[in-house]
Amino acid sequence: MTITATDLRPVLIAGSWRDATSQSSFQATDPNCNATLEAAFPVSDWQDCDAALDAAVAAAAELRRLPAEKIAEFMELYADKIEAAKDALVESAFAETGLARSPRLADVELPRTSNQLRAAAAACRSGNWALPTIDTKAGIRSCYRALGPVCVFGPNNFPFAFNSVSGGDFAAAIAAGNPVIGKANSSHPETTRLLAELAHAAVMESGLPPATVQLIYRTSHADGERLVADPRVGATGYTGSRGAGLALKAAADKAGKPIYLELSSVNPVVITPGALAERGEKMVDEFVGSALMGAGQFCTNPGIVMLVAGAQTDAFIDAVQARYASTAAGTLLSPAVARSLSKSVQTLTGLGAELLTGGGEPESDRCAVANTLMRVDGGAFLNDPEGFQTEAFGNASLMVVADDVPQLCRAIDCLEGNLTGCVYSSEGDSEEAEVEQITFVLEPKVGRLLNDKMPTGVAVSAAMNHGGPYPATGHPGFTAVGIPASVLRFGKLTSFDNVRPSRLPCLLKDAAPTEQTVRLIDGQWRGGAV
Amino acid sequence: MTITATDLRPVLIAGSWRDATSQSSFQATDPNCNATLEAAFPVSDWQDCDAALDAAVAAAAELRRLPAEKIAEFMELYADKIEAAKDALVESAFAETGLARSPRLADVELPRTSNQLRAAAAACRSGNWALPTIDTKAGIRSCYRALGPVCVFGPNNFPFAFNSVSGGDFAAAIAAGNPVIGKANSSHPETTRLLAELAHAAVMESGLPPATVQLIYRTSHADGERLVADPRVGATGYTGSRGAGLALKAAADKAGKPIYLELSSVNPVVITPGALAERGEKMVDEFVGSALMGAGQFCTNPGIVMLVAGAQTDAFIDAVQARYASTAAGTLLSPAVARSLSKSVQTLTGLGAELLTGGGEPESDRCAVANTLMRVDGGAFLNDPEGFQTEAFGNASLMVVADDVPQLCRAIDCLEGNLTGCVYSSEGDSEEAEVEQITFVLEPKVGRLLNDKMPTGVAVSAAMNHGGPYPATGHPGFTAVGIPASVLRFGKLTSFDNVRPSRLPCLLKDAAPTEQTVRLIDGQWRGGAV
Repeated sequence: MTITATDLRPVLIAGSWRDATSQSSFQATDPNCNATLEAAFPVSDWQDCDAALDAAVAAAAELRRLPAEKIAEFMELYADKIEAAKDALVESAFAETGLARSPRLADVELPRTSNQLRAAAAACRSGNWALPTIDTKAGIRSCYRALGPVCVFGPNNFPFAFNSVSGGDFAAAIAAGNPVIGKANSSHPETTRLLAELAHAAVMESGLPPATVQLIYRTSHADGERLVADPRVGATGYTGSRGAGLALKAAADKAGKPIYLELSSVNPVVITPGALAERGEKMVDEFVGSALMGAGQFCTNPGIVMLVAGAQTDAFIDAVQARYASTAAGTLLSPAVARSLSKSVQTLTGLGAELLTGGGEPESDRCAVANTLMRVDGGAFLNDPEGFQTEAFGNASLMVVADDVPQLCRAIDCLEGNLTGCVYSSEGDSEEAEVEQITFVLEPKVGRLLNDKMPTGVAVSAAMNHGGPYPATGHPGFTAVGIPASVLRFGKLTSFDNVRPSRLPCLLKDAAPTEQTVRLIDGQWRGGAV
Repeated sequence: MTITATDLRPVLIAGSWRDATSQSSFQATDPNCNATLEAAFPVSDWQDCDAALDAAVAAAAELRRLPAEKIAEFMELYADKIEAAKDALVESAFAETGLARSPRLADVELPRTSNQLRAAAAACRSGNWALPTIDTKAGIRSCYRALGPVCVFGPNNFPFAFNSVSGGDFAAAIAAGNPVIGKANSSHPETTRLLAELAHAAVMESGLPPATVQLIYRTSHADGERLVADPRVGATGYTGSRGAGLALKAAADKAGKPIYLELSSVNPVVITPGALAERGEKMVDEFVGSALMGAGQFCTNPGIVMLVAGAQTDAFIDAVQARYASTAAGTLLSPAVARSLSKSVQTLTGLGAELLTGGGEPESDRCAVANTLMRVDGGAFLNDPEGFQTEAFGNASLMVVADDVPQLCRAIDCLEGNLTGCVYSSEGDSEEAEVEQITFVLEPKVGRLLNDKMPTGVAVSAAMNHGGPYPATGHPGFTAVGIPASVLRFGKLTSFDNVRPSRLPCLLKDAAPTEQTVRLIDGQWRGGAV
């Protein structure tokens, strides 16, 4: 089939759905049956990017003049539209990702997405995300302000909740008052287009600048790097593979442009002998449930389990192996994910990890690889810790069995930065000394430390950190989940020193802009007027 | 004179004052008389850096086990020692920087330094810098935690208050619980050594790990870049020239290491016709006072004044010119500063700026260049905005005279990121429309927006931002001044998810660690227990 320009889906630039300037194209695959989906999408050239950037600059200027209330209204309207279009969105996402229609897409991810937009709307309306601070004695007031156009590159594994035009980075960037240029994930472009249609409709109905939300589907690597480094860009949010992310980071860093990255994480889970002795069966249930959920395609999937050698550990691994072998493999997001998973498993076994089950080639009639369990001893891990930390994104796990707790700690000390790290231990306090040693080396490696709990749930909480040291993310001080903290990434800190009252931003005037607004006024966090 | 190893001042590594491994050396100059100072200092090779890094890693681990109280005590003891050693410190700093003994060094900068350490101690003790957050329903608690060894590169212009072993970055890094490897500014190594002696004594007396504070004086560029990118480093703070800072940034970025930079800023001051008409003479006083204070060697020195053509503007510039010509030039910090200033002035006049007064070569018997005033019209500025923003660090200023407010706004829109930007306007509201236009383009360019006030004062306030968009700094969301906000730069956000109560950090246990501690507990900022 020859694809012509008229067959290509349009890009959304400067408020119009129009043909991309390039005729280069791509199509996504239905992972449920390994069939190429009919819709074809353009690979945008620099002319599209350039037009989007110009329109975004103009939109950013307009947005700065609008009250926060208008932006909040847009997000709420958009959330309503997403819920109203649930069936079509779920059907499209199912066809493009293979994720279960229910509960995953319809009942978990879609409500999370609309609720995230509403939480962002509330943060935007109150201004609380911006940490408004007033020092009446010094005559100085400060808060975070919109930073400028934000580029968002969404990942493959959350077609709604991290989508570049509806997800966490999108909501955070918009709540801070910035327009967004969304770059669709190539594995679910139609779902992204449907969302952008809803977003665009909500933009127009709520009277925001038409270019508040723009969408392109794909660019060359070179144009992507040029985009994040462009002087017109305020910042970039990226969730995806480490390789592509680091290339974007290098380009953005060189230009002095903030870029927030979520790259990769093997999310180590330490299980002590005491935990296995007390609740070995429960541990198997908990681990297998977390590790195979969504075919293991979560940022916080527990990819590496760290154990101490012994009979309990062998029994645990045997039980997990049996469960992996007897459980049908989930459908993976795309042929690329299936290929990458097989390759990572080959890399790990090539380094000497023992293949306990799985490890074959992708299935031919859908995107899937058999549930895969591998094992390596602590000494071998320590001989090539970088190699054994190769991320196997999907339904594969590596058991690292150390000789003893000191070796376990040395192995942990070799870990790269991760989003999460867990410690399961005896319910009593008989293992506190060992747990203290383990935690001391584990905590600096992770953004979120858990006890007796698997990492795959990412609660929406003010205390949540969905972040972590490099290379899990690009900076250890920021979280990608949790409104309002995640919004700060897309703000610019600004002091107003002796600025005349009438010229202050609403958020910093004597009167509080809303009843929900809380400000640090002369050292006290409180609501109300100065 | 031949310098041998025994003549060289020792470095402070791993708790010992010892000879550097290299015999390469340098000496500072007394800018008051252009004479080489006697003391000779080593240029450390990688062996010194490597030893300091190893010691810092060990110290960081020990510090993590100590209560915050111990670290706070160290900072208070150190502050006391700085005040007790005031005379020697002032004499040394005067000889190395030419800054006035009084009031500048003895009565302004030294008390600011010790008070900053005490404020950091208070933030460390209460833990408030770490934004402790407790969500009892979700069972998640978070705060910022120590990040690891911090390298601090201090600038030439604040021998105490931004010194690498006593200044703002030092205090912030220590308050976050990190050891510091200080890299002295080469223009005041003896002052830095004296401060490090006091710091080291305070470290030992308060029982902190001996390598909590370490000092080297200088490295090769290559070793500096290797240092900030080393896996053992947590983060780097750098204040200094843009060229050296960007080289360090490139190295740190590539390794995924946070680096906080304060690079350069011309701090535009806009003065409207209305302000000049109402209070022209006062404007001359204010501007000249701010611009020539400390021979203009402040990060927030107003280097560019932006005006609208007219008789009032001409009169203002004439009056400033007369004051510049009749005022003795202040002493500059070093021969390098004097040379760089002359060179920048040549660059600006070479581009077409009219030299109104000054502009000569450095004086021969001290580090000084005549007060220099230049003028360029808005059209010429717009033809080469990058060139005309060449920073002339010191007592030189550029007047940019636009044809009208629209051209003025176009010129502002071409500005790079700056620490500050000011607008002086009519006291009434007759110019509000113009001021709105000006502010709209100026605000995104600056970290601190001022009205009717010069930028050189940097008040210690919770609402202060001593930061700004690139290339003023490396990230628009952080401030280098203001405890506790500046401390956050050296912390790592960490969530504790379902972590057993006995294993939580003190700051996150149910009981508040101090009466001063304020935490975000279930959505409310408050003191007391959970």
